[in-house]
Amino acid sequence: MKDLDNLRVVLVATRNPLNIGAAARAMSNFGVRQMRVVNPYEVAFREARSAVGASELLAKAELFDHVAAAVADCALVVGTTAAIRRDLQQRMRRLEEGARVIKKTMAGGRVALLFGSERYGLSNDELSHCHWVMRIPTREEHGSMNLGQAVAICLYELVRGRKMATLKTAFREDAKSASSAEVERLTQGLLHVLRQSGYANPRKIAAEEKLRRLVRRLKLNADDAEVLLGMMRQVAWKLDASEKGKSSPNKS
Amino acid sequence: MKDLDNLRVVLVATRNPLNIGAAARAMSNFGVRQMRVVNPYEVAFREARSAVGASELLAKAELFDHVAAAVADCALVVGTTAAIRRDLQQRMRRLEEGARVIKKTMAGGRVALLFGSERYGLSNDELSHCHWVMRIPTREEHGSMNLGQAVAICLYELVRGRKMATLKTAFREDAKSASSAEVERLTQGLLHVLRQSGYANPRKIAAEEKLRRLVRRLKLNADDAEVLLGMMRQVAWKLDASEKGKSSPNKS
Repeated sequence: MKDLDNLRVVLVATRNPLNIGAAARAMSNFGVRQMRVVNPYEVAFREARSAVGASELLAKAELFDHVAAAVADCALVVGTTAAIRRDLQQRMRRLEEGARVIKKTMAGGRVALLFGSERYGLSNDELSHCHWVMRIPTREEHGSMNLGQAVAICLYELVRGRKMATLKTAFREDAKSASSAEVERLTQGLLHVLRQSGYANPRKIAAEEKLRRLVRRLKLNADDAEVLLGMMRQVAWKLDASEKGKSSPNKS
Repeated sequence: MKDLDNLRVVLVATRNPLNIGAAARAMSNFGVRQMRVVNPYEVAFREARSAVGASELLAKAELFDHVAAAVADCALVVGTTAAIRRDLQQRMRRLEEGARVIKKTMAGGRVALLFGSERYGLSNDELSHCHWVMRIPTREEHGSMNLGQAVAICLYELVRGRKMATLKTAFREDAKSASSAEVERLTQGLLHVLRQSGYANPRKIAAEEKLRRLVRRLKLNADDAEVLLGMMRQVAWKLDASEKGKSSPNKS
């Protein structure tokens, strides 16, 4: 996904090395490669970079002293927030809507996505470098999000709905539905067992119809219908064998 | 958003207290209140609960020994994965699509959303309790996500696009889906009969998992599950009676 190469995730004044690491991991999960870090708590950045298993992405992260420099080459600069901020001077878009605009812009130019510090979010000065602000729709009573989770959600929204390399699993996506004939064979197999065990009276047609409707409500696929029929046959055989054993005990 | 009260976030075999805390925080951000924890690394759970600022949500989290008990009252059980799993035996839905199904179900019944351990994800046994599996569309080369981020993204997708005011859906009150407890009772009833009749080997766990998945594919409603269980009990009784008759033929 080439246009994601136009995205810069910019972490501003981040304190906690675990959060820098978590942001990097989410970026890697969704195929975003370019991290910029502005004025981090230095120890945090060093720790995050040297953590066991720290990614190449983190090693290549660019360090800046100020937001202005970090976004200088970007055509669109978007601030993020999860908390409700009543002091905002800028246009606010919900994540779903903002992501649409970002995707369109990324097709032709660089976009910076800014995330503020864990404690204060983006300051008014930092926000003044942004074209607009995007809000993750958390609930008003507890808006403030964990930084790594906020990054993950924003990036997810940007790749959401895309075709990814196809998911090939062992699972046959739409198992073929059982045909009426297969469903009926199972119905009869089950009915036979129920009669053998005294659950259903062979003379009662209503019971058979009821059972037929029940089996059809199960929305069986062809393979499962066959497996279930095999089960019923084994049970029928066993019931039969046990009955014979009982009625002619002297046989052996 | 009242239907979110029907959602249970179930953390299975979680190791890291920070991840339990992060999951709780994301839940609070998006208005999901009921956490269940299955067989966590005990120290992790204690630590997470007693962390400074640990939420009421975490204090009220319910602890279970096994997945079956944790999902017993849920009509729909969904496993989650971010990694590509080629060993999956179940239907896989992408997050965007799966969330639609979950939202519809939540309008009328409880839904459990399962997250596996940090290192291994959900095991095949744990997955066998799920109706289907939902995948977060990470890229194939680095699929595996941080647990707290995975929870955040799944919950975000569930509230995504909502007006904060409740969406009133005209939910048709279809026949009530069977709860997981009812489905599991039927599974065990059927398994018992299959063992009695020599179809299933009691020592083979794989057979039990396979059967559990099969029964969960059936889309049972509560009434039908009960009727089928009654049938299995009758068959079991008959098999039992016949066996006894056979082994003590002189009794009568």
